[in-house]
Amino acid sequence: MTLPQRVRLFEMAPRDGLQNEPGALVPTATKIELIERLASAGIRHIEAASFVSPRWVPQMGDAGDVMRGITRTPGVVYSALTPNLQGLENALEAGVEEVAVFGAASEAFSQKNINCSIAESLTRFAPVLERAQSAGVRVRGYVSCVLGCPYEGAIEPARVAKVARALFDMGCYEVSLGDTIGVGTPLVAKRMVNAVSQEVPIERLAAHFHDTYGMAIANLYAVMEEGISVIDAATGGLGGCPYAKGASGNVATEDVLYLLDGLGIDTGIDLEAVIETGTWITRALGRRPGSKVALARGTRSA
Amino acid sequence: MTLPQRVRLFEMAPRDGLQNEPGALVPTATKIELIERLASAGIRHIEAASFVSPRWVPQMGDAGDVMRGITRTPGVVYSALTPNLQGLENALEAGVEEVAVFGAASEAFSQKNINCSIAESLTRFAPVLERAQSAGVRVRGYVSCVLGCPYEGAIEPARVAKVARALFDMGCYEVSLGDTIGVGTPLVAKRMVNAVSQEVPIERLAAHFHDTYGMAIANLYAVMEEGISVIDAATGGLGGCPYAKGASGNVATEDVLYLLDGLGIDTGIDLEAVIETGTWITRALGRRPGSKVALARGTRSA
Repeated sequence: MTLPQRVRLFEMAPRDGLQNEPGALVPTATKIELIERLASAGIRHIEAASFVSPRWVPQMGDAGDVMRGITRTPGVVYSALTPNLQGLENALEAGVEEVAVFGAASEAFSQKNINCSIAESLTRFAPVLERAQSAGVRVRGYVSCVLGCPYEGAIEPARVAKVARALFDMGCYEVSLGDTIGVGTPLVAKRMVNAVSQEVPIERLAAHFHDTYGMAIANLYAVMEEGISVIDAATGGLGGCPYAKGASGNVATEDVLYLLDGLGIDTGIDLEAVIETGTWITRALGRRPGSKVALARGTRSA
Repeated sequence: MTLPQRVRLFEMAPRDGLQNEPGALVPTATKIELIERLASAGIRHIEAASFVSPRWVPQMGDAGDVMRGITRTPGVVYSALTPNLQGLENALEAGVEEVAVFGAASEAFSQKNINCSIAESLTRFAPVLERAQSAGVRVRGYVSCVLGCPYEGAIEPARVAKVARALFDMGCYEVSLGDTIGVGTPLVAKRMVNAVSQEVPIERLAAHFHDTYGMAIANLYAVMEEGISVIDAATGGLGGCPYAKGASGNVATEDVLYLLDGLGIDTGIDLEAVIETGTWITRALGRRPGSKVALARGTRSA
């Protein structure tokens, strides 16, 4: 139970943060500025877009323009979600250097979210992984509902481990474990991570915890004690929870960085620059900041 | 590093939650209903009022009426803050069965908050403790700024331990350690608790953590690993942070109960009843719920 010395933060705001944004489409220029600001703050891994049909996710309809529009910072990886081969081709055309596929640990969630069983989703991912590999592009795998499902309730850690192992065996360089509805608590999260790490090396696992029930920071602390050293988060806490209106979704990058800083864990990221970026983007979207750190700092300096 | 099997929750909403409420005075009847609802939910320890000059804390001006007005539930302890002998006499007259004194681990905060040095505050508490003991009333001690001070910054754990020891030696049956501005992180909180527990038995210590920076749940998890088994919290996250407008103060009772439930720790409290109470009181005050659990649950059931 020793904490990692260094954590790699994987920024989710431009994709997971914006994809369900209600109301008007977020301008492409705003997305590009967001991504560039995050890179300037020292974030080295940014999920910048999703190459999915704009019929399903209108906010991601400009994925190609976003990817082509950003001024790249050397050393920063800009990735994109590519649910199928068509999405991958579009992503490759736009110069994406890393892609991701999105699976689930819950059958019911898989059916409702991507209209197929878990097994079928893995079959669909196979050609995506193959094509990506032949193009020299790394693939990240997501597993959703790892600590609970909105339809099925609790999810056995063994089921998470099975899907994570399948993605890893198919060639995903990293598997991100998503508490999609934010229901987890620390011991449950530890047990899940321990089960998955029997199948996938712990250094290839990431924690993607939502803060819907206010537990994300505690859960991250707990799984770092088990060896997790890659954390997904969204600046400004962008993203909300599509299953509970008004409730939080992604854990805020600012709050994760504050935690890591307090634990003496290095990230190479400038917290103040992220707070500024989060304040800017939440204002641009007309939202209340989803980061408690930003709220506490912002009002003190105001 | 084993978690406690049972945690005693000390409810703060009626006092710490309401004392800084801006705007109109909260009606006495509302306070009484709040306290009675909390007791009905199974909470066994409620800080119900503060017997302080209404010139300083107008919201607590009806402390006597509140204490006399509540229908007591057998087995529930209704306590009150009594900063001085006059307050104590008023509290005793109103039938209070437990009182509390409020000190600080930071000299600057002590001066600004109660207009005297830490040593002077302890001298002032002596006659309060003496009189309370002769009246057969237990005294709880608070130490504020245990993880940081808005004026001094970081606070050495040894300073916290010294004040906690002094309060314990004077006769406080329990010492509640307050992260008044919510700046702590898990390892810092653990170190502080370990230092204090060298001077005061761990079972006589409580954690009173504010959630201003979103760290309270993680910090509570961390200090429970060190043996803390008494937690202060406020239903609805009432209280705000007087040092950062719009930011959170007290950690929400609902979120603490959700954490404890997930960890398999017994409290004897009905979370759903507390969520209902929190929803009711925050609506009555025209506030947004300060509990993420309440937000997630409330909107799902709505």
